[in-house]
Amino acid sequence: MTLNVGVIGVGMIGQDHIRRLTHVLSGSRVAAVTDVDLDRAKSVVDNLPGARVHQSGQDLIGDDDVDAVVVASWGPTHEEYVLACIEAGKQVFCEKPLATTREACERIVDAEVAAGRRLVMVGFMRRYDDGYRAMKEALDAGEIGAPLIFHSAHRNPAVPPNVTTEGVIVDTCVHDIDVARWLLDSEVAAAQLLKPRRTSLAAENLHDPLVMLLEMANGVLVDIEAAVNVAYGYDIRGEVLGETGTIELAETNKVVVKRDGRYGGRVPSDWRERFLRAYDIEFQEWINAAAAGRSTGPSSWDGYAATLVTDAGLAAWASGGRAEVSMRQKPDLYSPATSGGATGTD
Amino acid sequence: MTLNVGVIGVGMIGQDHIRRLTHVLSGSRVAAVTDVDLDRAKSVVDNLPGARVHQSGQDLIGDDDVDAVVVASWGPTHEEYVLACIEAGKQVFCEKPLATTREACERIVDAEVAAGRRLVMVGFMRRYDDGYRAMKEALDAGEIGAPLIFHSAHRNPAVPPNVTTEGVIVDTCVHDIDVARWLLDSEVAAAQLLKPRRTSLAAENLHDPLVMLLEMANGVLVDIEAAVNVAYGYDIRGEVLGETGTIELAETNKVVVKRDGRYGGRVPSDWRERFLRAYDIEFQEWINAAAAGRSTGPSSWDGYAATLVTDAGLAAWASGGRAEVSMRQKPDLYSPATSGGATGTD
Amino acid sequence: MTLNVGVIGVGMIGQDHIRRLTHVLSGSRVAAVTDVDLDRAKSVVDNLPGARVHQSGQDLIGDDDVDAVVVASWGPTHEEYVLACIEAGKQVFCEKPLATTREACERIVDAEVAAGRRLVMVGFMRRYDDGYRAMKEALDAGEIGAPLIFHSAHRNPAVPPNVTTEGVIVDTCVHDIDVARWLLDSEVAAAQLLKPRRTSLAAENLHDPLVMLLEMANGVLVDIEAAVNVAYGYDIRGEVLGETGTIELAETNKVVVKRDGRYGGRVPSDWRERFLRAYDIEFQEWINAAAAGRSTGPSSWDGYAATLVTDAGLAAWASGGRAEVSMRQKPDLYSPATSGGATGTD
Amino acid sequence: MTLNVGVIGVGMIGQDHIRRLTHVLSGSRVAAVTDVDLDRAKSVVDNLPGARVHQSGQDLIGDDDVDAVVVASWGPTHEEYVLACIEAGKQVFCEKPLATTREACERIVDAEVAAGRRLVMVGFMRRYDDGYRAMKEALDAGEIGAPLIFHSAHRNPAVPPNVTTEGVIVDTCVHDIDVARWLLDSEVAAAQLLKPRRTSLAAENLHDPLVMLLEMANGVLVDIEAAVNVAYGYDIRGEVLGETGTIELAETNKVVVKRDGRYGGRVPSDWRERFLRAYDIEFQEWINAAAAGRSTGPSSWDGYAATLVTDAGLAAWASGGRAEVSMRQKPDLYSPATSGGATGTD
Repeated sequence: MTLNVGVIGVGMIGQDHIRRLTHVLSGSRVAAVTDVDLDRAKSVVDNLPGARVHQSGQDLIGDDDVDAVVVASWGPTHEEYVLACIEAGKQVFCEKPLATTREACERIVDAEVAAGRRLVMVGFMRRYDDGYRAMKEALDAGEIGAPLIFHSAHRNPAVPPNVTTEGVIVDTCVHDIDVARWLLDSEVAAAQLLKPRRTSLAAENLHDPLVMLLEMANGVLVDIEAAVNVAYGYDIRGEVLGETGTIELAETNKVVVKRDGRYGGRVPSDWRERFLRAYDIEFQEWINAAAAGRSTGPSSWDGYAATLVTDAGLAAWASGGRAEVSMRQKPDLYSPATSGGATGTD
Repeated sequence: MTLNVGVIGVGMIGQDHIRRLTHVLSGSRVAAVTDVDLDRAKSVVDNLPGARVHQSGQDLIGDDDVDAVVVASWGPTHEEYVLACIEAGKQVFCEKPLATTREACERIVDAEVAAGRRLVMVGFMRRYDDGYRAMKEALDAGEIGAPLIFHSAHRNPAVPPNVTTEGVIVDTCVHDIDVARWLLDSEVAAAQLLKPRRTSLAAENLHDPLVMLLEMANGVLVDIEAAVNVAYGYDIRGEVLGETGTIELAETNKVVVKRDGRYGGRVPSDWRERFLRAYDIEFQEWINAAAAGRSTGPSSWDGYAATLVTDAGLAAWASGGRAEVSMRQKPDLYSPATSGGATGTD
Repeated sequence: MTLNVGVIGVGMIGQDHIRRLTHVLSGSRVAAVTDVDLDRAKSVVDNLPGARVHQSGQDLIGDDDVDAVVVASWGPTHEEYVLACIEAGKQVFCEKPLATTREACERIVDAEVAAGRRLVMVGFMRRYDDGYRAMKEALDAGEIGAPLIFHSAHRNPAVPPNVTTEGVIVDTCVHDIDVARWLLDSEVAAAQLLKPRRTSLAAENLHDPLVMLLEMANGVLVDIEAAVNVAYGYDIRGEVLGETGTIELAETNKVVVKRDGRYGGRVPSDWRERFLRAYDIEFQEWINAAAAGRSTGPSSWDGYAATLVTDAGLAAWASGGRAEVSMRQKPDLYSPATSGGATGTD
Repeated sequence: MTLNVGVIGVGMIGQDHIRRLTHVLSGSRVAAVTDVDLDRAKSVVDNLPGARVHQSGQDLIGDDDVDAVVVASWGPTHEEYVLACIEAGKQVFCEKPLATTREACERIVDAEVAAGRRLVMVGFMRRYDDGYRAMKEALDAGEIGAPLIFHSAHRNPAVPPNVTTEGVIVDTCVHDIDVARWLLDSEVAAAQLLKPRRTSLAAENLHDPLVMLLEMANGVLVDIEAAVNVAYGYDIRGEVLGETGTIELAETNKVVVKRDGRYGGRVPSDWRERFLRAYDIEFQEWINAAAAGRSTGPSSWDGYAATLVTDAGLAAWASGGRAEVSMRQKPDLYSPATSGGATGTD
């Protein structure tokens, strides 16, 4: 009944997932790990009774004692491991990105379609956040009519000096892109980048803040403000304007304090504080589905789409203009429930 | 000590100002009125003891018993009356627009500069709203560092079916444009229009909602969402992202009610409910200044700038692209305090 | 058409009303003033063209050029001036308290009943506050069913060291008492005082905070927290629990600022900031009514009731127990509209 | 490494804990169950592979395969099972009340003291709620100075018609009592009950709402509003007034929706929605502690204290007056960390 999970990549995020699988969630244990740095893998295993270290991701995937796999290694390695999991018929949870190029994503989609069943879940954890879930629920219930505009803001207190504008498009905006596709039930047709006044707090190679505009296939306009050196906190804002109302993410503070002439509440200090629970819920749903032989959550198609849109963002940034997103036709495997909801199953 | 005011144009807005000058504010009375419809002017005067009706705006402006003039007539007539007031050396409060063309605005600016003193105040009442004033105060106090982006949203429950997209740019967005210039202490360099998905609640000749983008001369990016058939209420939103924080207009409800599984507060139902106090404060400041022989508030230059930006908006809408705003050099008369603050005086 | 007002008492509050009558509101001017300190009265008049100084309140009331009177002198003098106004048939606005003893209040009520019409308005300005008005409106509209409990809190940043516990009951709680009677449409049947832990910020002769309990004649329970050295701001809270919901005063901040890891808004710093508008509206309604020969607002009966309840509070404080409030039968003059609403007229 | 838990009592709450131990939390499994209704116990076990049914609680406690015990049976049976667990040296999680009489609680405390180590945790789950935890953290950090008053409100949409006033004191107010002791770090010295106007929605044998007043040993005043037929939702409110500020539980809604002229958010519909997470966290902490051979959370002493205070509440209700709480001296076993914090360990 316990799901034996193998973890590829035990950096910060991989170790956090190991903690989650071992000490927080129900129904799973970590049976095997591997890492490009084998010493690190070994030291992690020291605290995991009964777990073994593999020399490579391929070995781990081939281990009969491993029921399902978490891929938390460096992005460019994702394709290889995900394909191997599909080949082995094992459920795989892959941190974003699914793969770093359109072609790699297409190879994964092709392999999964050939396998005839969904085996891949991509780690877009915002779909598991209480706030976004309540937003989607209210939207789907028709509380504000058809959506027209989605305002999204992604604010980070600070980023390391080596983060580039391209990095913000690929690694930061990708979350807002996935949320937009999921909330609005539509693909992205085109992207454009706007250049607001630069903050003096950003490093030289980074145009911060940025605004990314998305034209959804269904006409909805999405504006994503990415401001990653905003100092005051980690603040994820979202508001959907519908025909007859709006839905907005609420503040997340637990208490209101009045002192020194002001009332107020806490803004989260980092993504961990803001999305800790979303990660837990995301993984628990994956464990439950994998243990039951089902798949769930954001699919390879969602990972493919996200990569196409960040590619379009990069092209738009480079050209200063608008870049269209051209997609393959969506295989039946991913329609309709699979891309529609965080809780969808195949 | 009482300011004798003449009112040109006694339609809905003119009558509302007469009520204000007569029954709400301190230090003024309505001494004379005129209107293109003289019968209407006469019936208004019936309730204003001691006030007279003039055959024309020019007659009213020339009346020695009239200390100062309110122009609330049809937009295309504004230029003529404002020029006559400048000529007569009388303070004039002109409802927006100052004038309907760039050239007409320039003639007013020229005349005022020639007169050597400010005589014109334009009715951009949002500068007198408690919310925007608190926003500007916090911004000017440096509470969030330099401004980078200003998100503005102008939502109306519904507009008459004859309102056009061009009308929304000229009559609706103009308020957000003036607020942007005033809050951010910068002129507008260029404008662009985006077309979100259309609401089914709008009439055929109207693309609703719209998003207008402004590039400010100082680099700040402004996005103005104009959604004028949004059903749920009259909702004016604004948020400035600065280098180290944000300032956002608060909700305006006076009580929070909990019932039927929800807590909540009122959204204003129309502009009157939302900006009633701003109009009162705006006029009281004008009365006080005019009675003291001073000028105050948004100037001819502000009216000129607003017209240039809405012109650019129209050009951008027509072309589908980006339109730059080219302005004359700002005369000293309008620098610096006069355009910088609602309370500025010459 | 202009109401000529005489002002008795030109201390801080009297001067504030003079400013209001002269520079803020419509339809009034100050025609005469007097004060126990005649020099102070004279210096005030210097800035009031056309106003004269009287040697005494009685002289001022007898002045034929005075249409209506504001009593803003020391509490123990109120009775004499109010009675003289009733005798002279002039509308009088009396700052709270109406009078300092039950007997004095009864003499005023008797005189007004004998005069056969309402001439007295007592300055309970909270009835004119936007928040309390919205609360009463929602309550009267049945939005939460019958009221059951009213939680009130009256928080002051600090009070002078000579303020006593008795002073808090008489001068601070009196506002909550009047609001309770007005909101809940009921007299107070009994009062009791509770002694929470004392704050170290209060002076020795003051038990701070206090909780005053009121049993309303209709059974509603009222708890009034009076905390007058609470440092963080001037914070007036109120919540009515009804059978099916609650109504609570909203925060009054105009903007929300995010910085330094927190979001928040301003708490007013003093009563002036919090209730400035309520004073303006209160006086404008009184001016309008007086100019029209009508009366309005909180009546002598309300002033009498408030004094009885603060008396009961003092008795309860002295005894440590519960004190009942015994009232005379309510004269028809004050029923029903007069006590029911801030806008009631006779 | 997995904690084998035996569950005594598989009614609604017992089954919910079984679900939690089996499907939600990490590190536990249900190894045995029993219930006064053995058929019910058997049907529960059908879904728990590897679990067995015992004929009695005593048998279950004696089972060598049971590492720790959850007592979720009828209140009057708690004493017997808790004492048996202490005797057996097994950690026991006991739903409130610890026991139904002062004497029974004292026997448990005596037994635990004799055992020389803490073995009992009482299910006061609010200490594990994010809101209360943030409140305690801010309070302990001195953000508002010393606490002076704690306003608590416990609102239920409706209760079954057989719920009595005494039941509300014992079963509803007990949560606010425990929170008060924990937040304020003080025992309760005396209790008193107030009778607000009754709601027409309550059954005949119930005085609803109630207000319970607590005088804490450190002088803080606590007022607990218990309103259990309030229709609009399940609403747990709390505010601590300190010397220099206040801390208040925030609303718990995840999104804000604007429609139909109002903005607003959801109020929870029942205790499950409101405290689901608190129960999860509470149990996870107990599992972690029990697996490590430690104890944690609210102790027998806390259970004893709560029972004494509800007893005082019942006495005060019966007499109409004030009832003092007299406690034994606190054994060292419970000082200081064990009773002070939800996370305390022995």
